[in-house]
Amino acid sequence: MHTDLVVALDVGGTKIAGALVDSGGGLLQRAQRPTPARAHGERVLAAVGEVLDELAASPLWPDARAVGIGSAGPVDAKAGTVSPVNIPGWRDYPLVDGVRERTGGLPVTLVGDGVAMAAAEHWQGAARGRTGALCMVVSTGVGGGLILGGALHPGPTGNAGHIGHISVDLDGDSCPCGGRGCVERIASGPNISRRALAEGWRPGVDGDTSAAAVAAAARAGDPVATASFERAGRALAAGIAATATLVEIEIAVVGGGVAKAGEVLFAPLRRALEEFATLSFVRGLEVAPAQMGTDAGLIGAAAACWDLAGR
Amino acid sequence: MHTDLVVALDVGGTKIAGALVDSGGGLLQRAQRPTPARAHGERVLAAVGEVLDELAASPLWPDARAVGIGSAGPVDAKAGTVSPVNIPGWRDYPLVDGVRERTGGLPVTLVGDGVAMAAAEHWQGAARGRTGALCMVVSTGVGGGLILGGALHPGPTGNAGHIGHISVDLDGDSCPCGGRGCVERIASGPNISRRALAEGWRPGVDGDTSAAAVAAAARAGDPVATASFERAGRALAAGIAATATLVEIEIAVVGGGVAKAGEVLFAPLRRALEEFATLSFVRGLEVAPAQMGTDAGLIGAAAACWDLAGR
Repeated sequence: MHTDLVVALDVGGTKIAGALVDSGGGLLQRAQRPTPARAHGERVLAAVGEVLDELAASPLWPDARAVGIGSAGPVDAKAGTVSPVNIPGWRDYPLVDGVRERTGGLPVTLVGDGVAMAAAEHWQGAARGRTGALCMVVSTGVGGGLILGGALHPGPTGNAGHIGHISVDLDGDSCPCGGRGCVERIASGPNISRRALAEGWRPGVDGDTSAAAVAAAARAGDPVATASFERAGRALAAGIAATATLVEIEIAVVGGGVAKAGEVLFAPLRRALEEFATLSFVRGLEVAPAQMGTDAGLIGAAAACWDLAGR
Repeated sequence: MHTDLVVALDVGGTKIAGALVDSGGGLLQRAQRPTPARAHGERVLAAVGEVLDELAASPLWPDARAVGIGSAGPVDAKAGTVSPVNIPGWRDYPLVDGVRERTGGLPVTLVGDGVAMAAAEHWQGAARGRTGALCMVVSTGVGGGLILGGALHPGPTGNAGHIGHISVDLDGDSCPCGGRGCVERIASGPNISRRALAEGWRPGVDGDTSAAAVAAAARAGDPVATASFERAGRALAAGIAATATLVEIEIAVVGGGVAKAGEVLFAPLRRALEEFATLSFVRGLEVAPAQMGTDAGLIGAAAACWDLAGR
């Protein structure tokens, strides 16, 4: 008895994951392929097709009623197209049509991966029951999604919550997006490493210069490593405070690899938030680590499908 | 035949305006008192009462079905209280109860003045028909309100859209709000004047150092005056781009006294917006002057009442 399943797809620059998801968030059947990220667009779609074919072989497939896609962005939910930065073969690529054709015409809901992650945290994670929430992924990039009025707010094109590319330093370093002083330019893992190295931090004998290695050094008391995480926390705090001041949220949920640094990141983030979240209606803002694990993308794609299909 | 009127109140630090508003936005009866801004809280409420009494003397009063209040913020729509920065006698002051008592128990809707302005521009002004809009007042302060999903987004406490106090310069000057590098700290009229004077601009023989005088000097070619407006435009652009990137809006509507500077403000603002609004889904963002005049506060209070009463 698994009626009304959703076919969930989580499309990223590294892998394409799929699952049949039930209404309790259970992943009943899974499939996965590496993303042929440098290949021609049709070849990338073929990999999506292989994931779908594998799911379609399941005896549960006839219960699938709809498809939910969370994709690396930017996406265009109106046009049904995607242009993931890390998949150059896909520019305004008609992913929704391609998936609809390969699933026998099931209705398809498309959102950005940050929006999907927010849907997952709102459904079963740290933002459960919240009226207003910003859910963020701090990793190689910085992404996010918004819950407003108790519901997912994907925006008309499915891209809302792109906190990584708001400027918190209008005279700051230029960002690959074309802007300047973006949150991602200061707070992403590679930028935490870059800043620590530029200021004189040196990795251990293993040569590991990842943000995780910088976090370990900070935990061991290295002042340069600590300062780089403090700067990241400050940029995240300014972005979170801006979001709360603009749309009113109760909680900011922070996940992704960089959030695994724990208090090395969260402590300076919370301190800076006191400085930036000053107005009465944002002063009670909470910050919490994400609760959903590696399946957040799939569960969120399914959640977004259920949330948005009726709108 | 003016059934279903709304009693609109526009409460600011200078004046308390009231009107009976019909469903077409007509102001059928008006009343106004200066705000006794430095007086005890009860005295300020008495001035609101005088405005209501004057309206209640109208033969149209029996058609009033509800009250809409747009108040200087912060407000707390949940608690029905207001704490306007410029009215120190009101801190968590129960304005909604006070107005309900003085209007025979009519239902009261409270929003911040920026939210009311956005409701007015969405109903009859530059944001008409838009799905997503940020409407701003750039004046002594910088305020705003949001339209999301085609409807007013006041937020749970009625304060959403407070763009004046998002930080666009995390290392910038400290702001009276307690934050740092806020849009208002860079782009408000007094800050435009302050910066021009600090950089060596001198007023004419009339001694006028207002932002309007700086705008006149910029129009006449003064480079310091021009630079001060360029800096303001840049801060506004960063804030507008952040809003669009976070929640997806189609248009930013800019009103208030400083917007009267026209192209002296709008030209650098639009240029800077190209720098900061870089992602595909925000690149088409429009900027337009506000269309509603001095009655925007009253019309917006009525519009917010109609928009929100059913929610």
